[in-house]
Amino acid sequence: MAWANMIAELIMVGTELLLGEVIDTNSAYLAERLAAIGVDLFYVTKVGDNQGRIARLVKEARQRADVVITSGGLGPTVDDLTKEAVAEAFELDLVLCAEALGAIEARFQCMQVPMSDNNRRQAYLPRGAKPLPNPKGTAPGVLLELADGKAIIMLPGVPVELEAIMEGSVIPYLAQRAAGDNGIIFSRVLRFYGLGESNLENLIKDLLVAQTNPTIAPYAGSGEVRVRITAKASSEAEATDLIAPVEGELLDRIGEYFYGYGDAGMESVVANLLLAQDKTIAIAESCTGGLVSNMLTNVPGSSGYYMQGAVTYSNLAKEAVLGLDSRLIEEYGAVSEQVARAMARGVRQWANTDIGIGITGIAGPGGGTDTKPVGLVYIGLSSAQGELVQRRVFNGDRLQVKERAALAALDMLRRHLIESKTEKV
Amino acid sequence: MAWANMIAELIMVGTELLLGEVIDTNSAYLAERLAAIGVDLFYVTKVGDNQGRIARLVKEARQRADVVITSGGLGPTVDDLTKEAVAEAFELDLVLCAEALGAIEARFQCMQVPMSDNNRRQAYLPRGAKPLPNPKGTAPGVLLELADGKAIIMLPGVPVELEAIMEGSVIPYLAQRAAGDNGIIFSRVLRFYGLGESNLENLIKDLLVAQTNPTIAPYAGSGEVRVRITAKASSEAEATDLIAPVEGELLDRIGEYFYGYGDAGMESVVANLLLAQDKTIAIAESCTGGLVSNMLTNVPGSSGYYMQGAVTYSNLAKEAVLGLDSRLIEEYGAVSEQVARAMARGVRQWANTDIGIGITGIAGPGGGTDTKPVGLVYIGLSSAQGELVQRRVFNGDRLQVKERAALAALDMLRRHLIESKTEKV
Repeated sequence: MAWANMIAELIMVGTELLLGEVIDTNSAYLAERLAAIGVDLFYVTKVGDNQGRIARLVKEARQRADVVITSGGLGPTVDDLTKEAVAEAFELDLVLCAEALGAIEARFQCMQVPMSDNNRRQAYLPRGAKPLPNPKGTAPGVLLELADGKAIIMLPGVPVELEAIMEGSVIPYLAQRAAGDNGIIFSRVLRFYGLGESNLENLIKDLLVAQTNPTIAPYAGSGEVRVRITAKASSEAEATDLIAPVEGELLDRIGEYFYGYGDAGMESVVANLLLAQDKTIAIAESCTGGLVSNMLTNVPGSSGYYMQGAVTYSNLAKEAVLGLDSRLIEEYGAVSEQVARAMARGVRQWANTDIGIGITGIAGPGGGTDTKPVGLVYIGLSSAQGELVQRRVFNGDRLQVKERAALAALDMLRRHLIESKTEKV
Repeated sequence: MAWANMIAELIMVGTELLLGEVIDTNSAYLAERLAAIGVDLFYVTKVGDNQGRIARLVKEARQRADVVITSGGLGPTVDDLTKEAVAEAFELDLVLCAEALGAIEARFQCMQVPMSDNNRRQAYLPRGAKPLPNPKGTAPGVLLELADGKAIIMLPGVPVELEAIMEGSVIPYLAQRAAGDNGIIFSRVLRFYGLGESNLENLIKDLLVAQTNPTIAPYAGSGEVRVRITAKASSEAEATDLIAPVEGELLDRIGEYFYGYGDAGMESVVANLLLAQDKTIAIAESCTGGLVSNMLTNVPGSSGYYMQGAVTYSNLAKEAVLGLDSRLIEEYGAVSEQVARAMARGVRQWANTDIGIGITGIAGPGGGTDTKPVGLVYIGLSSAQGELVQRRVFNGDRLQVKERAALAALDMLRRHLIESKTEKV
């Protein structure tokens, strides 16, 4: 089938989705990945754990689409019914798949947990279906190719499992199905921080409209914006040649906000800069409560640059741990440029590192005043090159303020590392 | 129509939903509000800004449901097509609604912004439809009652506007439509930690199979399991009477793993216990890298019990900050029962708190050995009652190990708080 015409449809399974207890993030992820490889998506449906309704939907979707992807209902419990529903829809029986059973048994062995009969159920697939390896959980994905060449793909509802199977098995399968023997789909993602999605679109609207091959698609992430450039070509080399000039044009216009490529988040970019410059860091956090340290230590090998951190929540802790002069807090308040600066300096001395970061602010919901509203955050950075402080006001709820403050601190660190490096050249 | 049987269907309109650029939170809100007033919801569909597809869906939904609620596509731009699609579906023309136009004009007057012709478009409704006042924006909601008594309700996609019209007009309308029979659906969610979903089901399978009213549905969260008990009754009091014995039976069987109700995660439960017992805490983290501190400070008011934390990543930091005897790490290794115990004791003394927690482990992917594999974590707890250490081995990738270790530490803290409290009684 011709790539540009491939149509997918999503069916999100789970009664909890229909009671509003869980917000469905899987369909947004799946939609983005399908758009990235040029697959059209016209309908997404949520349905409860009801075999008859799921079966009816799968049948309808198969009429409208070339590929139907389901999320959820592959778990070990009796209300996990997606495979049963697909079997009903296409009048297939469920048969034990030795490959799937082996994978499940192996997983339980390495977990050193006894395997229950319910998990055996997860190894039964509609006749003719293939299991898709699940590196993050027990429920294998399922690929069922129908006689007319259409495909039903079943994925577990747990996001990390769904994404692992999507990236590892489904995207390669769809790309191969779509591009056929002579062609590949290749895409590169550019990540930008500090630029709103609507501003981005104003700055590159003409490129978005003119896009053919490669295509350009902007996506709003949490606190950042990503732009995916996707080319269809006969080889990766040809695809990168197609992508290069478009990437160049983008960076000419908004390169100031560019921070990295692909899956590497801000914390990975910062980590690589710290390692490359052989610099160590310590973090003193108040309003972010350990989030910055947590993000930096999410990167494998972080012990190479991350030495220690302090979450100095109480004023007493700020003074006792970081050696702040108590008059500083009395005079300027705990949320102030002066305290952020002193925290950065203090944590750098405390940990004896090249760089110190200090963050103090009001995450809310309480604690705001007219002069110091909820969302006000000061970020200090101390290094051999000197000291900097940023004043920011973030909107959003408590967790959003924490996230946005942490990302701002990492971007401030990133810019400092790039500048201080060029200084040395 | 009988209230308990009223069936609704949601249609979420917007191409951005099909590109994964926006996560749909409106449908979760609408689903929750409908469930709360006893309206059944079987399908939610997302569709792009395509008049033909929207019209087709509205027609299909009208066959399946008594009330069809759409979200989005009421804006002033040319790709806002929901009203046009509904008019097409039921062969109605669009007519200018003076009441709607007056409201839009009044809004622009009070905003002191000139009104564009596009906004005039927002005052055109399918013939026979009524506008629903929008206190938060220019697009009025729309109520269209069909000859057979079924209703099509159109709401704007902006969440604050959608919620304002839902609460102000739609809920009262549905309640009035339901006049007489005022049955409700009431559900309670029980949260369990330390019990796999499949093990849970083995322990309560007979209850799941026998379920009628109330119904029981287990579902897996990240590192925990939740069980939703849902009753249909004529009042909340009657519903809770139906739920009580089922909840009692569940707690008799698996109460050992129960930690809380509803939306309150482990960190909130622990926070409430600390506040209730007026106890303070400090955390020393190695492999979790600040995650436990971050979770505890995600709870509003955490400054009431959370004093300070240390992320002692390097061995030097463990010794310098927490006063560990360097021979301890030499003799037993940084990942050991002895070091976890010393970290807990050290951070408690360092911060002068009632409780200290120390966590050391191997998050991976590197650093594992035969005797100390990736995923091995020791959690120490120090308090006036003494000291405890837990040894755990978690599977999963680096981030999963961090998450599972953090949850295990919070549960260990929770159990300690419950036991130490009863000691005092």
